[in-house]
Amino acid sequence: MGFNIVEKILKNHLVVGEMKKGREIGIRIDQTLTQDSTGTMAYLQFEALGVEKVKTKRSVAYIDHNMLQTGPENADDHKYIQTVAKKHGIYFSKPGNGICHQVHLERFGVPGETLLGSDSHTPTGGGIGMLAIGAGGLDVAVAMGGGEYYIKCPQVIKVNLIGKLNAWVTAKDIILELLRRLTVKGGVNKVFEYAGDGVKALSVPERATITNMGAELGATTSVFPSDEVTKEFLKAQNREDDFIELKPDEDAFYDDVVEINLNELEPLIACPHSPDNVVKVSDLKNVKVDQVTIGSCTNSSYVDMMKVANILDGNTVHEDVSLVIGPGSKQVLNMIAENGALSKMIASGARIIESGCGPCIGMGQSPANNTVSLRTINRNFEGRCGTVSAGVYLVSPETAAVSAIKGYITDPREFGEEIKVDVPKEFLINDNLIVKPAENASDVEVIRGPNIKPFPLAEVLKESVEGKVLIKVGDNITTDHIMPSNAKLLPFRSNIPYLSDYCLAPCNPEFSKRAEENSGGFILGGENYGQGSSREHAALAPLYLGIKAVFAKSFARIHMANLINNGIMPLVFKNPSDYDNIDEFDEIIMEDTVNSVEKGEVMIKNKTKGMTYSMKLEVSDRQKEMLIKGGLINSIRNK
Amino acid sequence: MGFNIVEKILKNHLVVGEMKKGREIGIRIDQTLTQDSTGTMAYLQFEALGVEKVKTKRSVAYIDHNMLQTGPENADDHKYIQTVAKKHGIYFSKPGNGICHQVHLERFGVPGETLLGSDSHTPTGGGIGMLAIGAGGLDVAVAMGGGEYYIKCPQVIKVNLIGKLNAWVTAKDIILELLRRLTVKGGVNKVFEYAGDGVKALSVPERATITNMGAELGATTSVFPSDEVTKEFLKAQNREDDFIELKPDEDAFYDDVVEINLNELEPLIACPHSPDNVVKVSDLKNVKVDQVTIGSCTNSSYVDMMKVANILDGNTVHEDVSLVIGPGSKQVLNMIAENGALSKMIASGARIIESGCGPCIGMGQSPANNTVSLRTINRNFEGRCGTVSAGVYLVSPETAAVSAIKGYITDPREFGEEIKVDVPKEFLINDNLIVKPAENASDVEVIRGPNIKPFPLAEVLKESVEGKVLIKVGDNITTDHIMPSNAKLLPFRSNIPYLSDYCLAPCNPEFSKRAEENSGGFILGGENYGQGSSREHAALAPLYLGIKAVFAKSFARIHMANLINNGIMPLVFKNPSDYDNIDEFDEIIMEDTVNSVEKGEVMIKNKTKGMTYSMKLEVSDRQKEMLIKGGLINSIRNK
Repeated sequence: MGFNIVEKILKNHLVVGEMKKGREIGIRIDQTLTQDSTGTMAYLQFEALGVEKVKTKRSVAYIDHNMLQTGPENADDHKYIQTVAKKHGIYFSKPGNGICHQVHLERFGVPGETLLGSDSHTPTGGGIGMLAIGAGGLDVAVAMGGGEYYIKCPQVIKVNLIGKLNAWVTAKDIILELLRRLTVKGGVNKVFEYAGDGVKALSVPERATITNMGAELGATTSVFPSDEVTKEFLKAQNREDDFIELKPDEDAFYDDVVEINLNELEPLIACPHSPDNVVKVSDLKNVKVDQVTIGSCTNSSYVDMMKVANILDGNTVHEDVSLVIGPGSKQVLNMIAENGALSKMIASGARIIESGCGPCIGMGQSPANNTVSLRTINRNFEGRCGTVSAGVYLVSPETAAVSAIKGYITDPREFGEEIKVDVPKEFLINDNLIVKPAENASDVEVIRGPNIKPFPLAEVLKESVEGKVLIKVGDNITTDHIMPSNAKLLPFRSNIPYLSDYCLAPCNPEFSKRAEENSGGFILGGENYGQGSSREHAALAPLYLGIKAVFAKSFARIHMANLINNGIMPLVFKNPSDYDNIDEFDEIIMEDTVNSVEKGEVMIKNKTKGMTYSMKLEVSDRQKEMLIKGGLINSIRNK
Repeated sequence: MGFNIVEKILKNHLVVGEMKKGREIGIRIDQTLTQDSTGTMAYLQFEALGVEKVKTKRSVAYIDHNMLQTGPENADDHKYIQTVAKKHGIYFSKPGNGICHQVHLERFGVPGETLLGSDSHTPTGGGIGMLAIGAGGLDVAVAMGGGEYYIKCPQVIKVNLIGKLNAWVTAKDIILELLRRLTVKGGVNKVFEYAGDGVKALSVPERATITNMGAELGATTSVFPSDEVTKEFLKAQNREDDFIELKPDEDAFYDDVVEINLNELEPLIACPHSPDNVVKVSDLKNVKVDQVTIGSCTNSSYVDMMKVANILDGNTVHEDVSLVIGPGSKQVLNMIAENGALSKMIASGARIIESGCGPCIGMGQSPANNTVSLRTINRNFEGRCGTVSAGVYLVSPETAAVSAIKGYITDPREFGEEIKVDVPKEFLINDNLIVKPAENASDVEVIRGPNIKPFPLAEVLKESVEGKVLIKVGDNITTDHIMPSNAKLLPFRSNIPYLSDYCLAPCNPEFSKRAEENSGGFILGGENYGQGSSREHAALAPLYLGIKAVFAKSFARIHMANLINNGIMPLVFKNPSDYDNIDEFDEIIMEDTVNSVEKGEVMIKNKTKGMTYSMKLEVSDRQKEMLIKGGLINSIRNK
């Protein structure tokens, strides 16, 4: 039996393990990317590894998250990233150059290569046939140092696109349809590989919209074939040499197949507060819109912007609507400024904001209370926009632009004849916002602002570990609970001591104080502890506060890996009902820990209650070693 | 003896009093403007007056300060201002339409008319011969209700411009020269009237740069003649009908004359941390620049932007510089997007931000710690940019653009041949971001977000007033001390209860707690208490906290007026050494207060020390009545 595209790329990059579904494998990483909200920490960790020059083929540091700069913290971080990148062989994309995923696709992505990025939407690169995966900052740091990246060998799901999209139906509607069918949990430990006749008619930006938002399925990543369309795109970016063809063998095996008939699709919309809460746009009647934002790594390509400009041309944004447009990159912005499209947007009354993540991460443009915000972004979780009471809906740029004019959520098919925009034969190439690494590292002084604090390092596992249960929480605690992320806290992503004050604060504002007063201790969680984003800060803050282990009924995959990377034991109750027998402030002791970890079974004694519970440690041998040696960094340093 | 321009406008608008220097006069206000950081409060106060429709010729509400929207507060305020404006006959300029002063000049200003604005840079309107004055929000609210505005009849200073500017020397350098000579205190109770042959060669945008930054002299306002240049500008804005000629009589009297020989000027720069700390650009050697911002109400006109675009054309911003450009209005942005200039800026590597106040008020784009920021704005007070350790320098757009390319503060004359840009014969007119008032007020529902709290109202003066001295502060306390203003607090300008927690916090973080615990009391200040901006919140927060009077050696003019407007007595020691005899927490009682206020002399008894001090109340009869009746709003309601 032949191989699918995912298997081909994995095989080419396999360093550790065997390609058996569900088994841990280590793969070689060709490229890395970071953004600034995770990047500062990733580079501090990279420095801690003591590697002089990155060992990847290409590593790029982007600034796209913290661009508002409402205090010195952001600019300090930018300066640190710029100088540390220059010193260690990393390309630096200055603020203003655009959103990491958009720019990486334009200027750096290579079909068939692996890309590890400290951002959950890294799978965008799958639009040109990369195996592009989001991960915690430390994993990216290790990859920059030449270390392999570990995943469970994934199931590969074939998404068979047949037929052709109707007028005003877009790539965004394809991924919304997939979310409608499979839900936000439908992709866990899976990679989606797109195939079928429908693929040929999709441009690279359209493919990238789909792989980008595949993250919302919970997938490891998504990937398109690399074909003539890919070649034309790379050629237009003056990078034809980066092209290779990638297609599955004819007898390739897939774990499952999903079929979407494009002819049957209509414009879709994800309603508050989940990306899989999808209905037809035409089903929503009389929903008045207060804000429309167009942009984000999902929908900010040249083609998206040109369609929007042509819809807005000669029209006026509704009096009660604030329309905000953020083109995806300097390349896009420069091209639409040059060809007059930007002028049309401005004339219609649109607010043009910088190329960056902005509204998508609540970094500005939060809507008013109790209002409706229509967005082309990828996530509409409650409160993510900065306004808990707002209802955020997710749509295509076309639906967004038409609705901005009408003042109501409007099926774009009501607008009239479809607007067609082709991918240009030649993009405007001007990389003057990308700073190359220094030829001589010793010429570069790394500048560290006062907001950049040393990050905490785990210690070698002690034979006996004791302390109190500092907090008891319920099921489905997210990384937003563990380490809240908003416009006020994002500037402090390089300052773990500051952030730690807010650790688990949404559950109990006293948590950090308790940890401090008791010199650390334990966290008690329910099912699915640590679900949500990949942010490593949800492990770093507990580490800083002296947390030795988390006891839970079950863990979310990425957070569990982040805990282990930082030397915190994720222990699962053998008997889940033991959870009920533990209270806050109970005193716990674990003995003979090293042997227990090696065995994968740890007994914890509750001194307060006089009880003992049996806990499972369901991790790989590699991870056990990390826990014993005090996390990933210490583990690597020891080698 | 004939009249100067200022006297002519004042005479035309005199409602109360006599035009004798130093005496209080009341003038009729033709136009008002508000921005959003002061506007929300101004409209709440306007509503409290119970007037259905504004009585001015033109009132406009702008959104230009709080545009980042890092939470729901800003958008809530925008929605409130939009709906309250529509209901009460006020034009509303949507976010994205530009900076109030720039837009007002373009679309609304009328030579010879009076303009009162709740922003200290309202004098920009003097560039087309308006008598344009900045004031507290309540004064603007009263003016919208048809009430007169009171000022001391000012001295008029003639600024005689002779000769002609050399290449690369600009209007900005003229006002910097004036600041160098007269200092930031040189204009108190004065109006600057520009005259001389040099005036003719200055375009309206150049004149507006000068009158705008006249605010930094501490002047009441500045004014240019209305002449052929003015007429051409209004014609290009399709507003020729608004033109009238304005010039001084040949035998006009001036209180003083300042002469500037334009031929002798060189490019100038204000060094940290004061706008009057001015030297020649050529005197600064090897000052490396980290950030350059171009824009603000001082320098964001079409002409400014075109010069910058032409300097940047074909060049690249220095690798270590973040260049940020904010065009002044939608009109400017649309024109430079249309003619390709914006594309040149983007190509050079500039970051383009929304038309708004932005960096000038520290609302974003704060520089890194210990760095140099070169800006075209008007104020470089320590910390105003959001970064206390940064050094902010003030220059012309030309100096800024050339320095951004070089990476060092650079005399623009080094760049080569001067770039000439004329004011266009026809501006691009498209007012679709200006919402007209409703024809029928009852159709409009005013929307109040949860962040908009009722503002405090003073009470009728009690016969006996007692309480503790809650804080004792030194000389030169600014309104920034009394009511701090930054990106974190600005969103709460419509929420006095929230803001009050930070009242006087830079002096003593315990102040608001003390006021609460003691149900109000008194403030003890030194010389020049309340200097700085016009913000009324520095009176509203103390009012909310129950402050009955401020005892000081002397008061700054605008803050003193704001205290009186809000029913707080500003009492001055007859014997300044009494200040030394009062300590924090001393118990004070004032009796027979109404009579005392009417007499202008108040005895305060220090019960703790067993002493009595004699205090002066140096205010007009109108103001005494306000203090007795409980502030301006109650005073008007009683009529």
